[in-house]
Amino acid sequence: MSSPRIVALGGGHGLYATLSAARRLTPHVTAIVTVADDGGSSGRLRNELDVVPPGDLRMALAALASDSPHGRLWATIIQHRFGGSGALAGHPIGNLMLAGLNEVLADPVAALDELGRILGVKGRVLPMCPMGLSIEADVVGLESDPRVSRAIRGQVAIATTVGKVRRVRLIPPDPPATHQAIDAIMNADLVVLGPGSWFTSVIPHVLVPQLIAALQATTARRALVLNLVAEPGETAGFSVERHIHVLAQHAPGFTVHDIIVDSARVVGDRDRDQLRRTASILGAEVEFADVSRPGTPLHDPARLAAALEGVRRRGMSADPEEPAATAQPTQTVNGPRGDDPWR
Amino acid sequence: MSSPRIVALGGGHGLYATLSAARRLTPHVTAIVTVADDGGSSGRLRNELDVVPPGDLRMALAALASDSPHGRLWATIIQHRFGGSGALAGHPIGNLMLAGLNEVLADPVAALDELGRILGVKGRVLPMCPMGLSIEADVVGLESDPRVSRAIRGQVAIATTVGKVRRVRLIPPDPPATHQAIDAIMNADLVVLGPGSWFTSVIPHVLVPQLIAALQATTARRALVLNLVAEPGETAGFSVERHIHVLAQHAPGFTVHDIIVDSARVVGDRDRDQLRRTASILGAEVEFADVSRPGTPLHDPARLAAALEGVRRRGMSADPEEPAATAQPTQTVNGPRGDDPWR
Repeated sequence: MSSPRIVALGGGHGLYATLSAARRLTPHVTAIVTVADDGGSSGRLRNELDVVPPGDLRMALAALASDSPHGRLWATIIQHRFGGSGALAGHPIGNLMLAGLNEVLADPVAALDELGRILGVKGRVLPMCPMGLSIEADVVGLESDPRVSRAIRGQVAIATTVGKVRRVRLIPPDPPATHQAIDAIMNADLVVLGPGSWFTSVIPHVLVPQLIAALQATTARRALVLNLVAEPGETAGFSVERHIHVLAQHAPGFTVHDIIVDSARVVGDRDRDQLRRTASILGAEVEFADVSRPGTPLHDPARLAAALEGVRRRGMSADPEEPAATAQPTQTVNGPRGDDPWR
Repeated sequence: MSSPRIVALGGGHGLYATLSAARRLTPHVTAIVTVADDGGSSGRLRNELDVVPPGDLRMALAALASDSPHGRLWATIIQHRFGGSGALAGHPIGNLMLAGLNEVLADPVAALDELGRILGVKGRVLPMCPMGLSIEADVVGLESDPRVSRAIRGQVAIATTVGKVRRVRLIPPDPPATHQAIDAIMNADLVVLGPGSWFTSVIPHVLVPQLIAALQATTARRALVLNLVAEPGETAGFSVERHIHVLAQHAPGFTVHDIIVDSARVVGDRDRDQLRRTASILGAEVEFADVSRPGTPLHDPARLAAALEGVRRRGMSADPEEPAATAQPTQTVNGPRGDDPWR
């Protein structure tokens, strides 16, 4: 059997974890990465050069770098941040290389492919959109009246707000998806969304009209990987159920086949039943699995890989024309492959 | 017969010309590059990160890049200067890559080898010393009394002085040579010095004690390539003879076998005889050759290659233990190869 094609959507450290797991299963891994970062080196480069923010893309390349001496060396190189106290301080070398490649090649995908070649990346790293975006959030709890909502703009501002994020949107609101990302989703065997910063790395993907349409139309098995802990800031205090609710709220009708939850996060039978009921909002079954590295709030690549392989195999045993385990209200949007407008 | 090993010493555009010629003759080209640049991107990076100034090294890598699609692409990439008007504006990507590689690898030679690998460089690019240096010049003509000499420090200041440069020295005065550079000189078949900015790219090499000793001790044929025109600034109005005189003045006892002079630069029999007499200061024969690109002040790579191949072959026909065409006063410093302290 040929190796499966896995597509992972996300950003930052969460995506790094998924990619570290997926590469254990197959060389055919495609990362689709959020492009709304406005902090740190990425923010500086966006302001200066109007590039797709390179930080999350660079991390995804490092996660997929070849396990050869050259691949490991270049993974270290692109992640290295300049020292000193001057104009370059804090910029990872890989961010500058991506920005420079993009200036020369005038194409963020070509720039990523070329840097990926240097790192011996077997799969591919793609921005979810071919341009940088902004995120704006409706946040409550910033005023004395807790019902008053304020619009907070920018990934850093949202990720660190002391208020409660109710909803996020992209600016501009209906950006085009990177067409290679759509192709990858449509040709995948398994698509994985999350883990990661929920409002700023995971939900942005389902706000891109062409991406959510492809996610819903693909015949791939679709899995959602929940975070191990509620992140401080944007999802402080969020329950597992709340993560599912806000995703569903941002993508009405969107379904996944599986939701992978760390066994230690939800323990009791009653809580698990409750989670299973919530998962049905997304048409999903819940897969309780040991996916964390013991004693840490981090996903363990080998364990997460085993969980992903489990849900992928479950997808294969189902009817390929009707992969969902339960009847799903939006299943009818899946037309025959030949009708896909993105292919 | 195996391909010859050619070593080219210089800096900037002059070295680029020699390397473009030498690569036509052999894949075994080693560039040994001055490290005193304090202007532009190199100057900014030296001030910020204390690196060997990367600009001339980057240009040498570009000159030796593989003639494959990837090699040509990366030669373009490393030479590309960031646009915009921010902190990165004007930095060539290759300078930032070299600075970053040097931070990670903590070794300027390892950094050059790694970037050279990306470019498919067959030969090698080496800094003449493993650290950045400064140049200081005694310059007259800056005061109302034309006999008064002032010390002017810095490559940019010297290259653009309106005064007359009398002498240059390195700071620190006796820097160590890069040991791989010494090895390359000792193992070369042909060593080429110049063309280039005479005081700031050519003469610095003969001021490094270990380099001048290796240049004198090697069994390689040694050629000096003169500039096509007197450069404005540091050598404004210099005759061909004056170039030879100042080199000899900075390196007493140093000899070369051949001085390559463009045929169009010295035309009359009387002038040519005069030049031949001056060349004897360096123990050299003069090779008049058509080495320029017609209508330009630039060396033509194919023509310069033909001239270099000519002097190399002349060296092969001579007694390998006594390669100089004329008896040379310093020949006695050539000990047996086994005695070389640098090998």
